[in-house]
Amino acid sequence: MVMAVSAIMSQLAASVTPNGMAVSLAINAVISVVGGVMVARTIPAVTSMFLKAGLSGRDLCKPDKESKVPESMGLVTGCVFLIVMFLFLGVAFGQHILNPTKLFPHAAFSEYLTSLLCICCMLLLGFADDVLNLKWRYKLVLPTVASLPLLMVYYVNLGSTTVVMPKLLRPWIGLTLNIGPLYYIYMAMLAVFCTNTINIYAGINGLESGQTVVAGASVALFNIIELSSSQAFSHYFSLCLLLPFIATSLALYYHNRYPARAFVGDTFTYFSGMTFAVVAIIGHFSKTVLLFFMPQIFNFLYSIPQLFRLVPCPRHRLPRYNEKLDKVEASEAEINESEMRWWVLAALKVLHRLKLVHLRRGTGPDSGKLFINNLTLINLTLLWSGPCHERTLTNTLLILQVLSSALAFVIRYPLADLFF
Amino acid sequence: MVMAVSAIMSQLAASVTPNGMAVSLAINAVISVVGGVMVARTIPAVTSMFLKAGLSGRDLCKPDKESKVPESMGLVTGCVFLIVMFLFLGVAFGQHILNPTKLFPHAAFSEYLTSLLCICCMLLLGFADDVLNLKWRYKLVLPTVASLPLLMVYYVNLGSTTVVMPKLLRPWIGLTLNIGPLYYIYMAMLAVFCTNTINIYAGINGLESGQTVVAGASVALFNIIELSSSQAFSHYFSLCLLLPFIATSLALYYHNRYPARAFVGDTFTYFSGMTFAVVAIIGHFSKTVLLFFMPQIFNFLYSIPQLFRLVPCPRHRLPRYNEKLDKVEASEAEINESEMRWWVLAALKVLHRLKLVHLRRGTGPDSGKLFINNLTLINLTLLWSGPCHERTLTNTLLILQVLSSALAFVIRYPLADLFF
Repeated sequence: MVMAVSAIMSQLAASVTPNGMAVSLAINAVISVVGGVMVARTIPAVTSMFLKAGLSGRDLCKPDKESKVPESMGLVTGCVFLIVMFLFLGVAFGQHILNPTKLFPHAAFSEYLTSLLCICCMLLLGFADDVLNLKWRYKLVLPTVASLPLLMVYYVNLGSTTVVMPKLLRPWIGLTLNIGPLYYIYMAMLAVFCTNTINIYAGINGLESGQTVVAGASVALFNIIELSSSQAFSHYFSLCLLLPFIATSLALYYHNRYPARAFVGDTFTYFSGMTFAVVAIIGHFSKTVLLFFMPQIFNFLYSIPQLFRLVPCPRHRLPRYNEKLDKVEASEAEINESEMRWWVLAALKVLHRLKLVHLRRGTGPDSGKLFINNLTLINLTLLWSGPCHERTLTNTLLILQVLSSALAFVIRYPLADLFF
Repeated sequence: MVMAVSAIMSQLAASVTPNGMAVSLAINAVISVVGGVMVARTIPAVTSMFLKAGLSGRDLCKPDKESKVPESMGLVTGCVFLIVMFLFLGVAFGQHILNPTKLFPHAAFSEYLTSLLCICCMLLLGFADDVLNLKWRYKLVLPTVASLPLLMVYYVNLGSTTVVMPKLLRPWIGLTLNIGPLYYIYMAMLAVFCTNTINIYAGINGLESGQTVVAGASVALFNIIELSSSQAFSHYFSLCLLLPFIATSLALYYHNRYPARAFVGDTFTYFSGMTFAVVAIIGHFSKTVLLFFMPQIFNFLYSIPQLFRLVPCPRHRLPRYNEKLDKVEASEAEINESEMRWWVLAALKVLHRLKLVHLRRGTGPDSGKLFINNLTLINLTLLWSGPCHERTLTNTLLILQVLSSALAFVIRYPLADLFF
């Protein structure tokens, strides 16, 4: 066993030297920029093709609600990302191909292949969802199945399933705890969580692509910091996927920001979520990655009452567009008090006091009815800030994402040292 | 170099013993059958979802031309195929996972991963083509890019680029010739050819899925024969992909045969073509595989004058449905004699004499006009056999596929021994 571990580890490490890493990353960055430019140019070129195929949506927060915006443009981003990665693999492993006296680093190569396989599967699933409107069960089962090869590669490359305990718990449990299979369940759930969490933190121009770029850049910064650690190889691996991912997503953001000339579609949110899951799993930072998803996690937890239908959930939970002001304001769902469980209503009243939800009695024709804001972080932000322009709203949420990333670094570095 | 070769070879071979192969193949066969049943049951269940999404086509060779048949059902086949393969990988490599004293066979594992990656990319491309109607240049460039990782794996697993010369040429060239990079160009072209060739030999109920099942079963039989050769591992690998492929395609054929309740779409033809290319390349029989595609190759060559617009090419080249007889007959394209190059016209007249094309002067309102049958194997068969029922036509073409496979075995075994 020890032999096998050291063989794999030395294989992984030997597959790229520090110097080789720098060169590879530089080349990766160049191809990524080219890929980004390709995405930026391809999107307008294929717009009419998407509109003709009926892949379009109405932009609900605009005066002209009838004009169509091409949907599922994540397909372009994802395909160009895959092309960039295929070309990069040729470069990264070319040194081994040209110098066949050394053994080829198969372990490292299969990490790339399995990552791209998972991402490609999610791109397909996302596009199928955009076209076919898949049922929820598929959206939960398929990412789990797609993450199987990823978990296998994690296993055979002898990934650790050991969790470091906080200092407080060490007297009882010890320094570390090997949670074994639970760790694999956690990773499979991470894949499902990531693919769906970006998907539900969405709906206003530029938010899906913007949050992806901010979170991606934050993770990349974390990887760069860790390049000097003993786990350099894992973080190098993550960077090789993240650079083209950020570049192509940024190009998508360019067309997706206010006023949107392209919508990203589930194609992009699934692709994006799985990419984060993949780099976190193979890069061995599957717990840290969640720190960079604090707004998404909050949004998910905050949405739970509506997702599980404890509170009525309308088809769209987008902010409401106020044409007179050209601003968006928090949208609401109507509550039928007689059908609500008493404890849910009581809890909502407490949250109302805490200004975490807004309950309102209707006036005029709606007199007597009870309304609650739709439970998304977008609407909560609007409750706190008051109605604002859609562009301002997206920028506010992206600044929030940047601040939460800053907090993540504080938690990961100074604070973690206190507790671990 | 020799060390590296022997290390890889022994790694590949050691990854599975003859006994292990038999067990793995048996398990693979069982999961494949389950996968086939899943496809057969899922297709009717998702039909309304596909119709609602506008993924449907009219069945042009039926009395009721308005009824819609769901299109792109290859998506179901392809997704179930991937799921089956993911589960199978768990089984096939599980022995190594449970017995971590042995080194994990990374070289073999990356062969599977890269194969599934290429196939998944083509599934995505095919589905995108069905939805978006991609331009021809994408259909040629994208399969080439998608086959890059495949060629890399072929290279690093030290695939041979040596071609055995026929006895006639040996006095001049020698026993073998290493054609080096040309071999890689050939393999990339094989991927492009396979993905497109099934796509253009299509259009009547059951033909796309039927030809795939026949060709797949033929290649599988060839692999089984070769399991006793020194290249057993490669053929075992091919079988592991082909069994689920045949099972899921057969289930699709069940719904696609006359009268079709499902159309396969480019999703299926691309998926199917790439699967053949992948098993042929990684299984090291990239020349032999063409023997099993003789009808497709003939159809491609026969189509060239229309594909390259030397002869006018209407949008559909399907046979024409004769409602009175409930039979299909060869369809025709109108030739504008003044616009034709003289040598094309002369060649067509020679081919007419040889009964390989049918030129006809119009009568009645079309008097004076010149017509030629659309240049597909389907129409040529109808010229020779006369009008027949659509079901009969598909069966005739599938029997032709079986006979050509029989001929392939004659060429590969007794005949090849004469010349090689």
